[in-house]
Amino acid sequence: MAAELPNRAAVLHGVGDLRIEELPRPEPGPHDVLVQIRSVGVCGSDVHYYEHGRIGDFVVTAPLVLGHESSGVVVARGAQATRHAIGRRVALEPGVPCGVCRECRAGRYNLCRDVRFFATPPIDGTFATYVTINEQFAYALPDSVTDDAGALLEPLSVGVWANRKAGTTIGSRVLVTGAGPIGILAALVAKAAGAGHVMIVDVNADRLRQSAELGIDEAIDGRDRPDLAAREPDVLLECTGVAPVVRSGILALAPAGRAVLVGMGAEAEQPLPVAAIQARELTVTGTFRYANTYPEAIALAASGRIPLDEIVGARLPLDRAEDALRMGHTDPSVLKTIVTLAA
Amino acid sequence: MAAELPNRAAVLHGVGDLRIEELPRPEPGPHDVLVQIRSVGVCGSDVHYYEHGRIGDFVVTAPLVLGHESSGVVVARGAQATRHAIGRRVALEPGVPCGVCRECRAGRYNLCRDVRFFATPPIDGTFATYVTINEQFAYALPDSVTDDAGALLEPLSVGVWANRKAGTTIGSRVLVTGAGPIGILAALVAKAAGAGHVMIVDVNADRLRQSAELGIDEAIDGRDRPDLAAREPDVLLECTGVAPVVRSGILALAPAGRAVLVGMGAEAEQPLPVAAIQARELTVTGTFRYANTYPEAIALAASGRIPLDEIVGARLPLDRAEDALRMGHTDPSVLKTIVTLAA
Amino acid sequence: MAAELPNRAAVLHGVGDLRIEELPRPEPGPHDVLVQIRSVGVCGSDVHYYEHGRIGDFVVTAPLVLGHESSGVVVARGAQATRHAIGRRVALEPGVPCGVCRECRAGRYNLCRDVRFFATPPIDGTFATYVTINEQFAYALPDSVTDDAGALLEPLSVGVWANRKAGTTIGSRVLVTGAGPIGILAALVAKAAGAGHVMIVDVNADRLRQSAELGIDEAIDGRDRPDLAAREPDVLLECTGVAPVVRSGILALAPAGRAVLVGMGAEAEQPLPVAAIQARELTVTGTFRYANTYPEAIALAASGRIPLDEIVGARLPLDRAEDALRMGHTDPSVLKTIVTLAA
Amino acid sequence: MAAELPNRAAVLHGVGDLRIEELPRPEPGPHDVLVQIRSVGVCGSDVHYYEHGRIGDFVVTAPLVLGHESSGVVVARGAQATRHAIGRRVALEPGVPCGVCRECRAGRYNLCRDVRFFATPPIDGTFATYVTINEQFAYALPDSVTDDAGALLEPLSVGVWANRKAGTTIGSRVLVTGAGPIGILAALVAKAAGAGHVMIVDVNADRLRQSAELGIDEAIDGRDRPDLAAREPDVLLECTGVAPVVRSGILALAPAGRAVLVGMGAEAEQPLPVAAIQARELTVTGTFRYANTYPEAIALAASGRIPLDEIVGARLPLDRAEDALRMGHTDPSVLKTIVTLAA
Repeated sequence: MAAELPNRAAVLHGVGDLRIEELPRPEPGPHDVLVQIRSVGVCGSDVHYYEHGRIGDFVVTAPLVLGHESSGVVVARGAQATRHAIGRRVALEPGVPCGVCRECRAGRYNLCRDVRFFATPPIDGTFATYVTINEQFAYALPDSVTDDAGALLEPLSVGVWANRKAGTTIGSRVLVTGAGPIGILAALVAKAAGAGHVMIVDVNADRLRQSAELGIDEAIDGRDRPDLAAREPDVLLECTGVAPVVRSGILALAPAGRAVLVGMGAEAEQPLPVAAIQARELTVTGTFRYANTYPEAIALAASGRIPLDEIVGARLPLDRAEDALRMGHTDPSVLKTIVTLAA
Repeated sequence: MAAELPNRAAVLHGVGDLRIEELPRPEPGPHDVLVQIRSVGVCGSDVHYYEHGRIGDFVVTAPLVLGHESSGVVVARGAQATRHAIGRRVALEPGVPCGVCRECRAGRYNLCRDVRFFATPPIDGTFATYVTINEQFAYALPDSVTDDAGALLEPLSVGVWANRKAGTTIGSRVLVTGAGPIGILAALVAKAAGAGHVMIVDVNADRLRQSAELGIDEAIDGRDRPDLAAREPDVLLECTGVAPVVRSGILALAPAGRAVLVGMGAEAEQPLPVAAIQARELTVTGTFRYANTYPEAIALAASGRIPLDEIVGARLPLDRAEDALRMGHTDPSVLKTIVTLAA
Repeated sequence: MAAELPNRAAVLHGVGDLRIEELPRPEPGPHDVLVQIRSVGVCGSDVHYYEHGRIGDFVVTAPLVLGHESSGVVVARGAQATRHAIGRRVALEPGVPCGVCRECRAGRYNLCRDVRFFATPPIDGTFATYVTINEQFAYALPDSVTDDAGALLEPLSVGVWANRKAGTTIGSRVLVTGAGPIGILAALVAKAAGAGHVMIVDVNADRLRQSAELGIDEAIDGRDRPDLAAREPDVLLECTGVAPVVRSGILALAPAGRAVLVGMGAEAEQPLPVAAIQARELTVTGTFRYANTYPEAIALAASGRIPLDEIVGARLPLDRAEDALRMGHTDPSVLKTIVTLAA
Repeated sequence: MAAELPNRAAVLHGVGDLRIEELPRPEPGPHDVLVQIRSVGVCGSDVHYYEHGRIGDFVVTAPLVLGHESSGVVVARGAQATRHAIGRRVALEPGVPCGVCRECRAGRYNLCRDVRFFATPPIDGTFATYVTINEQFAYALPDSVTDDAGALLEPLSVGVWANRKAGTTIGSRVLVTGAGPIGILAALVAKAAGAGHVMIVDVNADRLRQSAELGIDEAIDGRDRPDLAAREPDVLLECTGVAPVVRSGILALAPAGRAVLVGMGAEAEQPLPVAAIQARELTVTGTFRYANTYPEAIALAASGRIPLDEIVGARLPLDRAEDALRMGHTDPSVLKTIVTLAA
């Protein structure tokens, strides 16, 4: 086992109050592995906690380590943990569910009420040198997947889940609204799932350019009043949460089309086109995290079909975690920022 | 073949202008049967055309025979029609689709744009002594299904389709909002599909009483501010189209619950609880008519599991078709009115 | 808590060697309940272990308590077990899976390799006064479900699962081959799921009579060379495992029909009609136990749709467990034998 | 419209008796287009009719034009055919179903008993200068799809359908047995549908080399006694029809795996591993042609994901149709032979 390092972590103490602190090194439980973290992606939810101290009903009331998109190396194992060898590079699926409730047993463990999810109060996250996790939620990384890409399996999982919910398949015509990291990853997953035509709409020229460069079939500038319905999408992956976008996306769908609401809006209610939902028998659903996606995400990344490393626009060490959280303001063209932890 | 009768029909000439007229007797095409009609149910859409002259984009611009819930007797056949013997009692599925478009070929023929549907402009309906129909859309009635019940296979199909969309199955907990004919039939189909607990909500005491008498597990008075979420429904069959009811019905659903919007609302858009749709991964869809339901509906009726004749509250001859269309005002406790045609 | 009884159990020591012994009373783990058993059904697998000492790869190499179809009363709880009150009557789902493996997380926990299943070596079963079980695998019984019926939720689950795999739904035409307890329960579940016509085939007159008495639509004597294909089943629930029956059942299926192999045959391989599977695009699958069926089974039993108590043909106390295991020879007309444990 | 050519065709008069003859030019019906054929692929079924005069119950009793994998140019239209402009290049889906039977209405039109399928007795095929077809079964070809590729959309459809039946999706581990044209196309479709690892097994070194060159992840020599189960496939696409291969392929499947039997065997029955089907809850089904696949196949071909032109190993004019049918003997390394028709 590698030499023991101090367990330094980025801890949120309140709105705008992030501190780098040394915490006790965690001990793995019998089925856990201890992971030395290498790369952690900055997610919009980390930024939201940092800026607002809460997301909906989840409120930061005690110091909280942020970060949940993470990869690292196994450095110790619990007494009954045999799945991963010491030294193995792994990605961490951030939510460990109870395993026995109705939702878990039905295969929908993302809806488990007792899930322990990194960086969701009161569970600490992975902007830290060391974390422990149930060995079944650590996934071995093949050599072709970098540490950064391993961290980004988490947002990629969101894209995999959205497409699974949508039933994206060979020949699907997919409309993605919103070209942020999630929208772009969802669009790339749609391509990888055999979609015949993948369109992405945004109003930001940088994002549209990046979308085109990443191989998305059609990057549409929403300011041009595009005729989306004429493109006959049968899948909508909605990644903005903005009510008029949600509405126009759904209205664009062909008969029997499926809309998946991924982006969270500011309001709990939004006006939806129910008459069209009925007349065309559209289906509208939403996603909450993901379930059973990591093996698939690894397969996509390992085969090179989703170029995760190209999404990374900035890499900063843990000491600059606060800068990483502010990157959206500093340089909005950065799609994804990675916080790195020194070996 | 029976003696030929004059082909009398109830023809809508304009708002509130229904006339009993004699029309030419139609000739069956090569794959058609000629049916002498016996029973026709009065549907809300017939009433709506009578009172408003239109339903959405469908406008009555020329005289239109109303009626589409119908049964009768085969009295003649086209040259290549061999499916039904002369004299056979049949129910008529009212919409004959094109059979070759994308939707038809995918098994969603209810979404066919070229469907010819009885009593939808410009296609005449079945408040008439004789109609023709493709033999494949006429279904032989077993002796245990009366003429009236044969007519009511049409609204029963709406209930079958709603439950199929909802995935109602053994043990499902089903919430039906709205105890009109469609809501009640949808609830009874849910029971027949093995649902563990079927609840129906309405604000009309007559309807609630009728629901309970027909064997629906729980008839809930909406004026009592019931706690629907506490009942943990996993299926919502929404049969009112009223925005606050739709909203509260969806909000009541358990995680992974499915909402099917059957009732048509006055507005094309309605506020829906998108945050709950996301957090609980609910699915919302709507129904437009039905597809592949008649054999199933006949099976339900023939086995006695859906007591269709008990839904019938009034029977009037064709000459009183106008009274039949006004029955909702005359006696709101009548769930379903049948127009009969003399043999 | 009730007065403590000696923990008497029926222990299999070898082929044909069943002994009633007193064992230590088990201690519930933190998430467990301690259940005082009341009723345990005798399953063919119990008989098979008793007569042969093994089932396939599962070999009895150490003394084993038999029994896995069970109900009882909660008499103690682990420190963190809060789901059931002391005194609550519960049914026990006999297999507790690991909760974290690929199969568990996909909702297929019946395929978990690390499941601990009552009376499957080396896990002791429930022919005992006391057993412990994870509280999530104990299910509260409503008053309308007797202790015996609570025990029989286990074979009922097999029937629920078979129908779920088959997609039995409103109007389905279901052929069940084999009128033993599983076949009859599967047929009754098909009825409860809305099947339009349920047929059961057997060669035993007693079983056919019982099937008819229990309300199965058509009990067919297999010795009469019935034309099964003419009945156009779209679902086959195969409950014999006998090769020629499996073959003829599959051949009888209508286009796109689904066959579910429930009964275990003597041979690991059987000739199946692959040409018909291809030409009609039939689907053949099999069942291994069940998953996520207990709530549905309770709903069916509680509503009276499956008259479980009518299946019970004999009730014997624990002291006569060996007689219970031999009942198939003593009185083959007994569909199901219950071992009772004194309060 | 182009100058009218004589309608020359390759007509099978008996076993081994293929004649090039001039037939009357067909007249398009009201909904038909008249297509001047350009490319027709040689299918194993054409060869089988040529060598044996029958396939199962389909017997050639009168002269029959062979060929059903075809593309061409629209040169005339029926009175009501408006879908395609004169001069448009189209691929022809070879089977036109009745559109109204139970199977058609359920979206399974490939199971329609009244389908009219090219080159299946008594319907003539497309080794001909001119054929007519319902305009809805002709599909416009984009410029990026060549005439040959347009013809090969037919076997590609078989691969699309096999994968759809198998539920191949992101991350699937797919085992294809048999590296003939169908096996290779099925494997390429699996890749395009996001499969994580696609393996193909054959005993022919040429085929294995071609498979690897076309980008299939792993080409396995069946003579090396490979351990297929160790590769944990969750999908089997069986394209040989050879009983021991079918058996070992199914046995290799991971829990809940799906096997799709595409290749037709010599025997109507084969021994299948039912114990494994039960213990692992495997699903076995078969394919008969395909339904609703042409748009998807065009999308795959147009995007370059399936390099159809690379499958073509020989091109011969109509006059050499007999040589084309014998190509399997002349040069077994030719995966697919195209019969071309002069403009």
